[in-house]
Amino acid sequence: MSAADTVIQDLQTELAEGRVITDADVARSLSRDQAAGAPAGEPAAVVRARSTDEVRRVVEICLRHRIPVVPRGAGTGLSGGANAIDGCVVLSLEAMSEILEINPLERLAVVQPGVVNDALRAAVAEHGLWYPPDPASSPWSTLGGNVATNAGGVCCVKYGVTGEYVLELEVVTGSADVVRIGRRTAKGVAGYDLVSLLVGSEGTLGIVTEITVRLRSLPSPPITVAGFFPSLVTAGTAVRAVGAAGITPSALELMDRYCLRAVDDWKQMGLTAAGDVLLLARVDDPEPTCTAHAETIVELFRASGACWAERSTDAGEADALFAARRLAYPALERLGPVITEDVCVPKGHVPEMLARIEALAARHGVQIANIAHAGDGNLHPLIIGPPDDDEDLWLRIHAAFDGILDAALSLGGTITGEHGVGLLKRGGLVNELSPTVMSMHRAIKAALDPAGILNPGKIFG
Amino acid sequence: MSAADTVIQDLQTELAEGRVITDADVARSLSRDQAAGAPAGEPAAVVRARSTDEVRRVVEICLRHRIPVVPRGAGTGLSGGANAIDGCVVLSLEAMSEILEINPLERLAVVQPGVVNDALRAAVAEHGLWYPPDPASSPWSTLGGNVATNAGGVCCVKYGVTGEYVLELEVVTGSADVVRIGRRTAKGVAGYDLVSLLVGSEGTLGIVTEITVRLRSLPSPPITVAGFFPSLVTAGTAVRAVGAAGITPSALELMDRYCLRAVDDWKQMGLTAAGDVLLLARVDDPEPTCTAHAETIVELFRASGACWAERSTDAGEADALFAARRLAYPALERLGPVITEDVCVPKGHVPEMLARIEALAARHGVQIANIAHAGDGNLHPLIIGPPDDDEDLWLRIHAAFDGILDAALSLGGTITGEHGVGLLKRGGLVNELSPTVMSMHRAIKAALDPAGILNPGKIFG
Repeated sequence: MSAADTVIQDLQTELAEGRVITDADVARSLSRDQAAGAPAGEPAAVVRARSTDEVRRVVEICLRHRIPVVPRGAGTGLSGGANAIDGCVVLSLEAMSEILEINPLERLAVVQPGVVNDALRAAVAEHGLWYPPDPASSPWSTLGGNVATNAGGVCCVKYGVTGEYVLELEVVTGSADVVRIGRRTAKGVAGYDLVSLLVGSEGTLGIVTEITVRLRSLPSPPITVAGFFPSLVTAGTAVRAVGAAGITPSALELMDRYCLRAVDDWKQMGLTAAGDVLLLARVDDPEPTCTAHAETIVELFRASGACWAERSTDAGEADALFAARRLAYPALERLGPVITEDVCVPKGHVPEMLARIEALAARHGVQIANIAHAGDGNLHPLIIGPPDDDEDLWLRIHAAFDGILDAALSLGGTITGEHGVGLLKRGGLVNELSPTVMSMHRAIKAALDPAGILNPGKIFG
Repeated sequence: MSAADTVIQDLQTELAEGRVITDADVARSLSRDQAAGAPAGEPAAVVRARSTDEVRRVVEICLRHRIPVVPRGAGTGLSGGANAIDGCVVLSLEAMSEILEINPLERLAVVQPGVVNDALRAAVAEHGLWYPPDPASSPWSTLGGNVATNAGGVCCVKYGVTGEYVLELEVVTGSADVVRIGRRTAKGVAGYDLVSLLVGSEGTLGIVTEITVRLRSLPSPPITVAGFFPSLVTAGTAVRAVGAAGITPSALELMDRYCLRAVDDWKQMGLTAAGDVLLLARVDDPEPTCTAHAETIVELFRASGACWAERSTDAGEADALFAARRLAYPALERLGPVITEDVCVPKGHVPEMLARIEALAARHGVQIANIAHAGDGNLHPLIIGPPDDDEDLWLRIHAAFDGILDAALSLGGTITGEHGVGLLKRGGLVNELSPTVMSMHRAIKAALDPAGILNPGKIFG
């Protein structure tokens, strides 16, 4: 019997019926995330766990056979972090999708890792509460995946990323122990901050089986301000002016002319006629501060050189102004596969970074459109891949990809603002972190996963 | 030559003149923090470093001789974390007190670890900026110490603790390497969150030599609301009502009747005549929201049963209302040495926790007064020690101390909300964390400090 067969047999013997997925198509669909260009191996087995104890058993079996376990949520990741390794067990947490507690007094919720981000938001909204982190994948991505990647989103410019909301975790360790780390209290410094260490560790230090998140009150209804600018420089000036005015918008998004053009080509919205760069700001302070801030932003946009700037007067209009932002990605996908970059630079360097991206696109003869969480300095250059399999173009795309990482690092930035390292950015990580810091990573990995079975080869080789 | 003599000789040879402190009184004063009742050993030497390279050399020398190095800031800690170990080198970072950069555009500051918290606040205020974390020790405590303990304070109920403001650290590791971890960007997920792991690690995983902190805009001028309540239950109801109204005050402090009486006995302010419990709330939203929230809090205090509740109408009055809070600690110290507890419980359990503390005081025949960051559920029971050295009373004080930790844990709380474990709470930590989580701590310690020379014996034995 092959090693794979033995593992499958143990899984089938020790887990309830139906947990081990044998359908080849389903197994294949659970063997990679949405990272274009990241390699994915052939798993020995795929398991859909339904409880912490089942997760623990899967890890125990993998530990016994010394084979890798690759945890996954909805598979919306963009760096290959959930991609299968040859001979591994892919462990899907999607079926652990219960909201276990919503506590309005303590302002927290306890969820299983398979709960979808938007489902949690909807459930807590019924109590007047809010879970802020809002990755673009929020209609599909799970809290477990959000925790594993420390997911960001549009509103983190004001409200922070996933890690700032995680209070407590239940985790299955590399030794197949179930542990609870963190706590439900508002504050606490008893021992090392293991929760923050696990958040963003992409399944390499433990498998999260329960998550307690902090909640906030629902914010006031937002006002959106849209501004079209003739250039990246004027838009950059506007972003800086908003910051200097002491206003913290709950979103400050940028779309460049390539995005606007793609949306126009598809939906004929006439965006490119209005300007080269679109800035979308959102404010959600209590009234009348909210209106005052929105009006100030309109003035600052105009004073910075906007061709046009207006604010929404109701929620419907605010939503309509964000429509172009939502359409950008599908509009670009019509042109070919989209390779999503995710660098983050000091805010003041956003215009320079955009200029360098433009130069890289020209040098390598590729198309690069830009969406950016401009208020955070977090840019998503979107490299449009070849519709047909042009090997030379792929080489040029990879050269542009690497060039973007290098440019971000040379501006004091990071290779990943919110998507994670996974497989795609392991080379970039080595350029960002010193050899000593890399060896600290390896030492921590060895300390918490001595057998090296938890998603090995992700983040670092 | 003794081991201590060899170390002193190496330090004197390899460091600039004047760095090794030979005056016995000065050395003794640098061998403990402010934790009453925590043991302190006799150091082999005390060094006052002036640069990262000097810190690196000290660690190198300690590594060579395999002797412990105990880093310290201003020594305002309350858990014995900076107390000397017999034969160790105490390494003071206090002289590394330069503010290296204040960057209004990126909203960050870069400081050496010896910069005093209030000095940083004052410096950034000149740029209209604000560093929120405000431990009570802010006039004296250093940023390095704040980072080592993940210090909290009054305003963290709205603005969060130290860790939420630390972007990047320069650290000397246990292998005497200088590393930079974290980044200056607003977001970043490249590799494990080593910054959060170091924050709050009490000098056991690395010695912080440079700190980059996130800044905010200065908040609006605050309004303070004071309310006197006839009982802990009515005050607890008021705290809950403020939360339920969706208001996030920037302070929500509680003082019990023992504190009020001590202040009255000293300053004759007539506080005890006004009520048994004082709640102090502060709001700092932009106007007119600020006034509206303050008025709502006054109404909620009254509706919850306050004997008296009013809001300040100017900054001077706001300050005056907080005067009793500031006087509480020195007023209690007049009665004997004060042993400061620091438990944190889920907010809803604050009244129950206060009741249990009262019962413990009665059972063990000791005096316990309470100050609490009520909005966070972070309580500081202040056990008044014997003015004369009554051994039996000390035993009863320790029994009450342990009883408070047990009560906090049984209510789902933690043994330390913001002061850290140090030496005083190592026993409590073992009760809070499972054996597996404790072994994860040890594994991480061994991974990052293989020689075990960095503040050994603190947090865990």
